Amino acid sequence: MNDTTFVACAQLEPVLGDEAGNVARTCRALHSAADLGAQIVVLPELASSGYAFTDRDEARRSAQPADGICVTAWAAVADSRGLVVVGGFCESDGTDAIYNSAVLIEGSEIRAVYRKAHLWDRERLIFDAGQEEPPVVDTHLGRIGVVICYDLEFPEWVRIPALAGAQLLAAPSNWPEAPRPAGERPGEVLRAQAGAGVNRMYIAVCDRVGTERGVDWVGGSVIIDPDGWCIAGGQPSTESGIVLAECDLSLAADKAVGGLSDIHADRRPGLYAPVTHES
Amino acid sequence: MNDTTFVACAQLEPVLGDEAGNVARTCRALHSAADLGAQIVVLPELASSGYAFTDRDEARRSAQPADGICVTAWAAVADSRGLVVVGGFCESDGTDAIYNSAVLIEGSEIRAVYRKAHLWDRERLIFDAGQEEPPVVDTHLGRIGVVICYDLEFPEWVRIPALAGAQLLAAPSNWPEAPRPAGERPGEVLRAQAGAGVNRMYIAVCDRVGTERGVDWVGGSVIIDPDGWCIAGGQPSTESGIVLAECDLSLAADKAVGGLSDIHADRRPGLYAPVTHES
Repeated sequence: MNDTTFVACAQLEPVLGDEAGNVARTCRALHSAADLGAQIVVLPELASSGYAFTDRDEARRSAQPADGICVTAWAAVADSRGLVVVGGFCESDGTDAIYNSAVLIEGSEIRAVYRKAHLWDRERLIFDAGQEEPPVVDTHLGRIGVVICYDLEFPEWVRIPALAGAQLLAAPSNWPEAPRPAGERPGEVLRAQAGAGVNRMYIAVCDRVGTERGVDWVGGSVIIDPDGWCIAGGQPSTESGIVLAECDLSLAADKAVGGLSDIHADRRPGLYAPVTHES
Repeated sequence: MNDTTFVACAQLEPVLGDEAGNVARTCRALHSAADLGAQIVVLPELASSGYAFTDRDEARRSAQPADGICVTAWAAVADSRGLVVVGGFCESDGTDAIYNSAVLIEGSEIRAVYRKAHLWDRERLIFDAGQEEPPVVDTHLGRIGVVICYDLEFPEWVRIPALAGAQLLAAPSNWPEAPRPAGERPGEVLRAQAGAGVNRMYIAVCDRVGTERGVDWVGGSVIIDPDGWCIAGGQPSTESGIVLAECDLSLAADKAVGGLSDIHADRRPGLYAPVTHES
């Protein structure tokens, strides 16, 4: 393949409130992924801080600006190893607000900061919700969109970067453990597969592992191809490690799904429900 | 359970152009489903006519009005057996138009006719596209929405009946056979599972079997619960037969997905892409 790109998810275990340690953990994981040949590396949601904050004040103490120690360290590794990095961090922008954010870094440059728009469970008590669409960034490796975890459960949100031409949607996540029938993939994986398939784009979800204040995660990091099949990962795990796949991102330019059918051109946007503005 | 409803998909093999024979085949299948205790029965797409028309003229010769022999026969069975029936038929409305339609029948009454809005592959050369949203009908057994086959691949379209309160989405289908990795469910099943899960409603897809002019189908009729799990069917098959599941349709009223999260209330419609009207 002419257009082979190695995409990795660096599944790991952040430690709540240990910002310095999390810089070290995540940078080691970026190097490990680069050692395996990864060119695009996705880190989990809130990789700078851990997840299970008791309240807003505790989250604020872990929050950093986009040019804080964590993102700056990621950019240094990205620059030295020639990586594109997408990772989640706990963001303060200098106001009273706190965001569950993700950054897209290309070499030394912060190309985009995204703030999670769909806040899961108690996150709404801790973070401010993002008010902007998922970014889509033209990198030297391809066109990459960014969302975070629960955002993936809203097909309207996945559609936005897809229609903007994203070839790969990178989703830093902390998928909470939930019941499932024996032998089934996690439901979050199935729904990410559907999001990839109905948009014919790659999706890379980086999940976390470890237990934090009684919360467990799926550890189901996965890379999904434009047909919607898992090409790496996608099974629950309690282990840190690199999930790596060889991707031909150019495939995502072709939305044909059989004969005369085109999964984007066949949409009927004139018939879809009118947007209702939130109160 | 107080609210147990038996839902069935009557997977069968229509014969192209044999309208009288298809009446007999589908009515036999409705009786078989009723004999097993089914209360809601879904038939395949174009069950009145078969699928693989060469052109519009051939389809027109098989087309019937909604009060034609096929739907009238279904209503007679529905009335005598106390069924709600959703089935696909090739529709002529007396104008030059031809539609790939589905009817929802409760007892002797036609409660809704839906015309497929997303036409797959060569269907666009044969049928006129529907211009109306999926109907959602309050039956004595629950609130039922109707879409057809390829419609399910458009999450916006599945969302419309879900937001209108559908507890069960019935989808007469002819899923074309397509490659998939060994051991995987058909991709269409995964995407239907995602549609059920992100909307917390039941979905019942009735597929067909048999080969028609070189076209094969998945035979993957499936009933999916509001958690997105297959509770009956969902594996490829070449056999006609009844796929039956016991459903508690009241579960679909609850959109909670964990803690403070509600999969419908957590939508951010004010942020979703504005509707672009078709030319």
